Amino acid sequence: MNLGNLAYEKLEALSQFTDSGEGITRLFLTKEHREASNYLREIMEKAGLEVEMDNIGNLIGTYRTSKNTDKTLVLGSHQDTVKNGGKYDGALGIILPIVALEKCIKDGIELDYNVKIVSFGDEEGVRFATTYLGSKALAGTFTEDLLERISEEGTSLRDELINFGLNPEAIGECRLKENVTAYLEIHIEQGPVLEHEDLAIGIVNAIQGSHRYQIDIEGIAGHAGTVPMKYRSDAGIGSAEVMVEFTNYIEKLDGIVATFGIVELSPGSINVIPGKSRFTLDIRSLDNNLIASSVEKFKEIVSKVAERRKLRFKVENTNIAPSCECSSRIINMLEKSVEDIGYKPFNFPSGAGHDAQEMKNLTDMGMLFVRCKDGISHNPLESVKSEDLEIASEVLVEFLKNYN
Amino acid sequence: MNLGNLAYEKLEALSQFTDSGEGITRLFLTKEHREASNYLREIMEKAGLEVEMDNIGNLIGTYRTSKNTDKTLVLGSHQDTVKNGGKYDGALGIILPIVALEKCIKDGIELDYNVKIVSFGDEEGVRFATTYLGSKALAGTFTEDLLERISEEGTSLRDELINFGLNPEAIGECRLKENVTAYLEIHIEQGPVLEHEDLAIGIVNAIQGSHRYQIDIEGIAGHAGTVPMKYRSDAGIGSAEVMVEFTNYIEKLDGIVATFGIVELSPGSINVIPGKSRFTLDIRSLDNNLIASSVEKFKEIVSKVAERRKLRFKVENTNIAPSCECSSRIINMLEKSVEDIGYKPFNFPSGAGHDAQEMKNLTDMGMLFVRCKDGISHNPLESVKSEDLEIASEVLVEFLKNYN
Repeated sequence: MNLGNLAYEKLEALSQFTDSGEGITRLFLTKEHREASNYLREIMEKAGLEVEMDNIGNLIGTYRTSKNTDKTLVLGSHQDTVKNGGKYDGALGIILPIVALEKCIKDGIELDYNVKIVSFGDEEGVRFATTYLGSKALAGTFTEDLLERISEEGTSLRDELINFGLNPEAIGECRLKENVTAYLEIHIEQGPVLEHEDLAIGIVNAIQGSHRYQIDIEGIAGHAGTVPMKYRSDAGIGSAEVMVEFTNYIEKLDGIVATFGIVELSPGSINVIPGKSRFTLDIRSLDNNLIASSVEKFKEIVSKVAERRKLRFKVENTNIAPSCECSSRIINMLEKSVEDIGYKPFNFPSGAGHDAQEMKNLTDMGMLFVRCKDGISHNPLESVKSEDLEIASEVLVEFLKNYN
Repeated sequence: MNLGNLAYEKLEALSQFTDSGEGITRLFLTKEHREASNYLREIMEKAGLEVEMDNIGNLIGTYRTSKNTDKTLVLGSHQDTVKNGGKYDGALGIILPIVALEKCIKDGIELDYNVKIVSFGDEEGVRFATTYLGSKALAGTFTEDLLERISEEGTSLRDELINFGLNPEAIGECRLKENVTAYLEIHIEQGPVLEHEDLAIGIVNAIQGSHRYQIDIEGIAGHAGTVPMKYRSDAGIGSAEVMVEFTNYIEKLDGIVATFGIVELSPGSINVIPGKSRFTLDIRSLDNNLIASSVEKFKEIVSKVAERRKLRFKVENTNIAPSCECSSRIINMLEKSVEDIGYKPFNFPSGAGHDAQEMKNLTDMGMLFVRCKDGISHNPLESVKSEDLEIASEVLVEFLKNYN
């Protein structure tokens, strides 16, 4: 069986660890996280790796070279998904390295360096409204205050870690102590570029920055029949105006996207004027200055709408991940590996954020993207061809052979 | 103790039957509905009425005159509230008739007709996205298809009635068989007019019509970072545009109001473009033609936005209550009763819809409004003065004495 089919099979096997419902839902520190980790431990050990789980719930498989070196290459991605997500976002970047490294070991190719393959516990940040908890711990950028984050179910990250059998007080020790010389992440593109270019794989040259905000707007709830339009302070219409005006603004710019993914009106009855609205803004660009100026514009719009509609408001930043460039050393090595298997190198930026952004705080970072059908991701329809997995695996084997 | 204070005390007692949370939340066919009905049964029986619950969950207390007549006056309002509503919307129109009728009975005044005081189970329609289920059953306008309505929790009205110990197959028999000569409803104004006029009470001459719609918009969910703005089919932004454009349109008209009370985005994640949006429209006016032309405009806007943003849509009418005039016979009798206690009659239309609209299908209908603080209703801040309750009770006692 070729590496693509091997990877495809393992990805199918991993996809069975999901909450009920459409698509894949595998959240951080849940039963599904545990089951997926058990499966990954099994196949990592079968590949010849030593496996351990650290105190933030990352599963780490280690290959040790017999050569006298402390140099370590880290490969990996995240085990968690969004709600009703797909089989490949994250999973691909754990399975392909296992398959490629196993191939090297089986073929008797001894590498000149150690390798760690990481399955990060949390990247999507669905449960605690944050991101990259796993890679933050590994890169040493995890801060104590994150332990107080409250989940959708009302429990703290600290308590959920303890319930999972982990020690939140020891997260500081998760930072990798080895001489880590690079981090490489394989991921589906989650966008339409490779499909448009008719390419199975592409080399990432930079990652978009992303800012996240939570906005609270407060007006006055009232009876939908008796309060004349001109006397209303409708938090729902105020929010809708903010979203429309800002979207119109962003649509006129290039190289930036903005999304309002969550909107909650209160009290939320058909015959009551909404007194409160809470919604989220996710804004991304390669250009950190463009994000900054757009966020200023957003705050202006909120303020203007609030004044016009007699509303109070609060705009709270919940996350900032600045845009960052990939290491030219890794890009060059990836280009060589792609050429070595007779394929065409193609470099382009990532629209999505990734653990690689956090890992850049620790070491040189690079990413390889694999084409996904119609660019669809965060959706049960996420799909990848096993031919493309084969090409990506071959590139990765070449990369492992050549890396130093 | 005067009647106003008596009523005030009973309204306080009734307000303890509420779900947890801010204000009063007492929904149809819930534990709170059951508890409130038990309390109302107790005070109705204490006043000398025969009490029974019908198969839609209306509690009915009957006074029988010893005179040889089948004429029956019906008084009442609804026990249910919106979510996080107030103590007086609905409750007032059950408690004041009990207090006034009890006064007549205690004073040895025998009426020339029978009286039924009704606590309607459902008027607000919060659970099943419909309205006036209680008065529809009494007026004989309840239709079988309503039994298939699905609650927010996913259960059918039919099953919820059965769980409450009622017989959904017997709702047809709820229609009053007596010779009902009139229906009178006392209610808080839920608007600012009486306060502006410095009046405790006012006589309703007409009720606004209301139409309700549920709108489903469908686009394509996708990753918030990788899909360029121009390739998106964002159901959330589409909905926001519809709401803003239509609100702008309505705000330029007189004598009509429109409210978007519920908005639900799916999947509802910070980093996912909303693929689906479901929201509600509540539109009201005294002028049925103005409602009709505005609904046409609304559908135009939805269609235009959907085309521009590559969305599919469905606009479904869930309720129509045409505007209607109150009976001039009842208005005249109310005017006389108001004058008899030395107060000033004042007639004006109702901005809110009421059970009286449904009861007009059965008999002559009239309404008396009581001032509420700042016109605030459907809100925990709903407030009524006991001096105003006293005036309303006196008018009601006069009305009962004079009615024939």
